[in-house]
Amino acid sequence: MSPGVAGFSDTFAKWACQPNLNLDDNDGTEARLAFLDTVACMVIGASEHQSIAAMAAMERGQAFGKVKPVGGGVGLSLFAASFVNGVRAHAIDYDDFEFSGSTHPSAAIFGALCSLAQLNSLTIHQVCDAWIVGYEALIWLGQAFGYSHYEKGWHSSATLGPIGVAAAVSKALDLTILQMSYAMSLAASYSAGLKAQFGTDTKAIHLGNAAEAGLRAAFLAMENVNSNREIWDQSKGYFELYGATQSPGFDFITQNMELGQAVKKFPVARKLWPSCAYTHRAIFGAQNLRSKFSSTDEIVGICVKLPKPFHDVAHFGVPTTVSEARFSVQYCVAAGLMSEKVSCKDFDDQIIREEKRQQLTDLVEIETYDLPAGDSGEFSLNTVEKITITLGTGQIHEIDVIDVPGDSNNPMTDSQIIQKSVECGICRSTAEAFLAVDGNTNVIQTGLLDQNNEAIFDEVSCK
Amino acid sequence: MSPGVAGFSDTFAKWACQPNLNLDDNDGTEARLAFLDTVACMVIGASEHQSIAAMAAMERGQAFGKVKPVGGGVGLSLFAASFVNGVRAHAIDYDDFEFSGSTHPSAAIFGALCSLAQLNSLTIHQVCDAWIVGYEALIWLGQAFGYSHYEKGWHSSATLGPIGVAAAVSKALDLTILQMSYAMSLAASYSAGLKAQFGTDTKAIHLGNAAEAGLRAAFLAMENVNSNREIWDQSKGYFELYGATQSPGFDFITQNMELGQAVKKFPVARKLWPSCAYTHRAIFGAQNLRSKFSSTDEIVGICVKLPKPFHDVAHFGVPTTVSEARFSVQYCVAAGLMSEKVSCKDFDDQIIREEKRQQLTDLVEIETYDLPAGDSGEFSLNTVEKITITLGTGQIHEIDVIDVPGDSNNPMTDSQIIQKSVECGICRSTAEAFLAVDGNTNVIQTGLLDQNNEAIFDEVSCK
Repeated sequence: MSPGVAGFSDTFAKWACQPNLNLDDNDGTEARLAFLDTVACMVIGASEHQSIAAMAAMERGQAFGKVKPVGGGVGLSLFAASFVNGVRAHAIDYDDFEFSGSTHPSAAIFGALCSLAQLNSLTIHQVCDAWIVGYEALIWLGQAFGYSHYEKGWHSSATLGPIGVAAAVSKALDLTILQMSYAMSLAASYSAGLKAQFGTDTKAIHLGNAAEAGLRAAFLAMENVNSNREIWDQSKGYFELYGATQSPGFDFITQNMELGQAVKKFPVARKLWPSCAYTHRAIFGAQNLRSKFSSTDEIVGICVKLPKPFHDVAHFGVPTTVSEARFSVQYCVAAGLMSEKVSCKDFDDQIIREEKRQQLTDLVEIETYDLPAGDSGEFSLNTVEKITITLGTGQIHEIDVIDVPGDSNNPMTDSQIIQKSVECGICRSTAEAFLAVDGNTNVIQTGLLDQNNEAIFDEVSCK
Repeated sequence: MSPGVAGFSDTFAKWACQPNLNLDDNDGTEARLAFLDTVACMVIGASEHQSIAAMAAMERGQAFGKVKPVGGGVGLSLFAASFVNGVRAHAIDYDDFEFSGSTHPSAAIFGALCSLAQLNSLTIHQVCDAWIVGYEALIWLGQAFGYSHYEKGWHSSATLGPIGVAAAVSKALDLTILQMSYAMSLAASYSAGLKAQFGTDTKAIHLGNAAEAGLRAAFLAMENVNSNREIWDQSKGYFELYGATQSPGFDFITQNMELGQAVKKFPVARKLWPSCAYTHRAIFGAQNLRSKFSSTDEIVGICVKLPKPFHDVAHFGVPTTVSEARFSVQYCVAAGLMSEKVSCKDFDDQIIREEKRQQLTDLVEIETYDLPAGDSGEFSLNTVEKITITLGTGQIHEIDVIDVPGDSNNPMTDSQIIQKSVECGICRSTAEAFLAVDGNTNVIQTGLLDQNNEAIFDEVSCK
């Protein structure tokens, strides 16, 4: 660290503002895959209630402009489009996540960047570099706060998210080191949103807020609005108010930050199922138990044993809404036992109300155990989940689940990501071309964001 | 409380959504005075750096629309205009405040209502009723959290503010009880902003954020975005994360809320000086000591004794920026000793750098004392401030200050408010007519918000 550069955001911005981040090709590829995966989530998320309501609120407030939200609709202001993109990306909880900060990084970052790319001409390389910078910020914030920030009740995507977005947008706008540092501190003034909103429409709204807030912070910093760059670890500062007893803190990370390593060392996890990450092991385990019976009518008992903090998040039992279903371990295990392949159809308002599903959901018993102190909340040996089913014959079948497909130990393949994006409504040829095209191509020219593009209108025939 | 109505926001919304709030005439008068005082702050605040930057950021993000921000400029979207209005209203810290929640209530509430009044036709009565509802929400949130929320490091205007604005806008939009309750919980997802930003441009940005966030929450609730209405006091909920050990809590207030009493029992305080409220006693005391010397050259020592939490807020010594000067007890006591009447001129970039002022500021010693546990942070007998000056002759003069003009014990008179608004750039006849006109008049027709109105262009000759 050079003299005169103190504080988290200053150190970080000094690295991020280098013209060349010296990343390897794999980092760029990771970013591009994240872009495609997130745009896919925006497209399928656009028709959800929260997204429609978010769009309607922007229209009612006459936030019209030239920026088209991804997934269609009238042009909005840069700010409103970022908000709508963020909401859409997270509407069905299908977007990527990471374990260091327990955030959904890409919904917010690409929510902002997809709108910015329409006003400022940005290449794929520029957008990918910006995502890498934003992702890096989130990983290191996650290291500073540890899992206990999330466990305490904060929805990290909404608290840390704006800061990552501010860093990403500052990079895309080519701000100075000082301006990026101001932007990150300004973004801390948008750190809000509780996990207590999970299971309601407001969870997705949080991601829209994070996208817009980070972008706004960068735009204000670009106009030289100043902020307190020492806010992170000073008395009554950010760490004191958002940290927890077990959080390592900013001193720890400024001593340990190896900037430029996040994408490799803390790889993103992507989702094969549109529900809370803490329901994925239940789904995966249940799917694996399907060979043990020929009809769910044979099942007389179901037990899921999982870490208490995971169940605290995905705690809804028999769901009354689709949003609750996405956060119900019980419902998700039932869906996994009933459906050949759990998909968006399992989170439909009619389907969740089917009597048989509700009965099977109601049969699920939950047993929880505490995590070791200071655990990172990752899917690991510390957090094994056990799913047990008892059949009417008295037979008992059980499975231990650690990793699930899609997480950082079992990453989705490129073709799985393309397949997901096609299922979300993106034309296969557009998705494939986007992954193959030269990185110096203007993002808009790829057609990926343009829902008025004929190739995308062809989606139905493409599927 | 009727059966089935539980939780802070539900109880509150049930009261607030009554067609007739059964208020007396004085409440309406208070609201109208607050309106005039706040619009005046927006007008004079429009030319400050933070306001210009906020406007420039909105323009760069192409947030154009039909809503004119108060104080002039191009039309913006409803959201962007609310943001700019809030920033302007608080740009020089001249807007009103209240002690229950330690918030600046009117900058945020009228920031939103002044923009809303341009899209939806609102009468003065409607705007005043909405302000009363928003103010009431802030007072009771303040009672739930106590001074310790603010003292802990939260900028209450930015944390509690959005919730008050959401209630006010919900009232103005005539939302249902359920929608208002959703709006208030949604607004809790925008509760962010630390006191550590005081003395930077970001402090005023917080008020813009609060205005826009509360408005946005109400607009989303109007589209039936749902949220967790039990968020206030449940485990890992709002109180757990934003409260402090000494905070009374939501159980306390839901048992004690006497709704409709806030304006009378917890009257708003207005400002005669454009600086942090915790510098006002320093200014007032210093002005009163001016008769004791003929030139500040005679002063060899200055001491200010004040409560530690007040000094923690207004802690900048010799200021390097105008924003710091507004949060420097030392500078403000020096200004009070030097200027015949402390005014906006004392917070000018050139003036604060004058050698004589800097020397006098540097002479000020601070002595602090702790507040009794659980003190409300009000200007009261618990919090007396003593200002002592020592002259070269050896003579010592001191003054104890409890109340200052403008605070709730010494409210500004109508003519003082009119005079302040004239000094801020509003034409006297417009101000007088606004206070006198029938409450069923459309707000826009009063000309108060219209900076392209000739009467307001005449401001220079009016002064």
